[in-house]
Amino acid sequence: MKNLIVIKIGGNVIDDKPLLDKFLRDLCAIDGPKILVHGGGKLATELSSRLGIETKMVEGRRITDDETIRIVTMTYAGFINKTIVAKMNACGGNAIGLSGVDARLIPAAKRPVKDIDYGWVGDIQTGKINTSLLTSLLSAGLTPVIAPISCTADGYLLNINADTIAQSLAVAMSGLYQTSLLYCFERKGILSDISDPESVIPRIRISQAEELKANGTIGSGMIPKIDNACLAISDGVSQVIIGRSDDIVPIANNKHGYGTRICQ
Amino acid sequence: MKNLIVIKIGGNVIDDKPLLDKFLRDLCAIDGPKILVHGGGKLATELSSRLGIETKMVEGRRITDDETIRIVTMTYAGFINKTIVAKMNACGGNAIGLSGVDARLIPAAKRPVKDIDYGWVGDIQTGKINTSLLTSLLSAGLTPVIAPISCTADGYLLNINADTIAQSLAVAMSGLYQTSLLYCFERKGILSDISDPESVIPRIRISQAEELKANGTIGSGMIPKIDNACLAISDGVSQVIIGRSDDIVPIANNKHGYGTRICQ
Repeated sequence: MKNLIVIKIGGNVIDDKPLLDKFLRDLCAIDGPKILVHGGGKLATELSSRLGIETKMVEGRRITDDETIRIVTMTYAGFINKTIVAKMNACGGNAIGLSGVDARLIPAAKRPVKDIDYGWVGDIQTGKINTSLLTSLLSAGLTPVIAPISCTADGYLLNINADTIAQSLAVAMSGLYQTSLLYCFERKGILSDISDPESVIPRIRISQAEELKANGTIGSGMIPKIDNACLAISDGVSQVIIGRSDDIVPIANNKHGYGTRICQ
Repeated sequence: MKNLIVIKIGGNVIDDKPLLDKFLRDLCAIDGPKILVHGGGKLATELSSRLGIETKMVEGRRITDDETIRIVTMTYAGFINKTIVAKMNACGGNAIGLSGVDARLIPAAKRPVKDIDYGWVGDIQTGKINTSLLTSLLSAGLTPVIAPISCTADGYLLNINADTIAQSLAVAMSGLYQTSLLYCFERKGILSDISDPESVIPRIRISQAEELKANGTIGSGMIPKIDNACLAISDGVSQVIIGRSDDIVPIANNKHGYGTRICQ
């Protein structure tokens, strides 16, 4: 099987223009099939605020009401997606911007209301991901760049967590490619001491993850990422590395000493 | 050669939800390869106004400054494009939303400043349109839905006239498909009397167009559309019909008595 890398970049990279530009240049220099998934950064919150719309977050997740789904679709699938694709293509990449809506790439359902009504937030129907579209784009030498927006079967737009999209795509593609999932953000990896940026944990086994979460080594902000990483490994992804966007080249080339590797 | 229809829908259709919904349902029921190009409607102007940004128009064209290119990218390539694609896929279509940026679909250059500085407005590099991407998407049964945004070779986003995109795509594809170009808007066709919605001119020859423009029969608002239509016919497009979005099915099926046909 051919190799494939699925890379997620976080909002702090998207919000930092020089960091984003360097990351995209580096990414375009990496050979072979790759898929980029991006989050949204602060742009949606800033636009909401300029429009006088209050941003409501519960447990780090955005409550997506009627106005907010319009705003996140505009910013994520519109400005951020096209800005990234335009920059990649200017750097010699061959990128195509998509969302989960397009060609039914990532079918989703509206999250049922239990304790919290998240509004227009979706859960991915993982068995229905359009892997044949991705395979044909990758075979044509294109890099899909995916915004975290999808829709219901009856056409209502939904906001989807970008970490979860990256994990679901990596799992879905792992039957067709030997797939690596790379979570890129502004830190060097999962830190054993949040105040020491050099205290990277080089390797976390799935069996250790629960303990590290329970004893507070993995802070609350990192828990969804670790959970997604463990799920990816359990479901057939070859490797997951969490590391710094600046180190994308050594991480993608599997150099030791970069990022935190999640393994069986 | 197979048939292909390239359809452009205007802003007045996009702004009218019931009209847009009916048009998209009808479009999905039409068999065979098709490409949809959409404009922007009032959403960009409304968003600009809510953000306190003045909309500047010169001769019906939007002056696109730094803030405006962000707004049109958000609204056209983000909200409008994904709303249309989600609706089409909910109606049994198989749509994929793209802009000129994606996979270098529609390379463009910033319009040189002469008398007027249009800002981030682009002119299409017609010889460089990525027809192989469109052909492979159409062969896979997908309907490309294209937002009128592109970028320069060095990655600066540009606002492009949607009528011109439709014409350029139809011309570029006419070497590969027998291509019809359909301009769909809220009227039944080009009217000989603007106050009489039934006064449709059934057929305009290229040789007549200049006269009809000069004697005022073709009003100033319709001139860019007619110019694009004549250019398309001169450059190899099989037929151009200007008609009502509500009549898309009979127009696409070449029924007589619908729309204004531009011919040699």
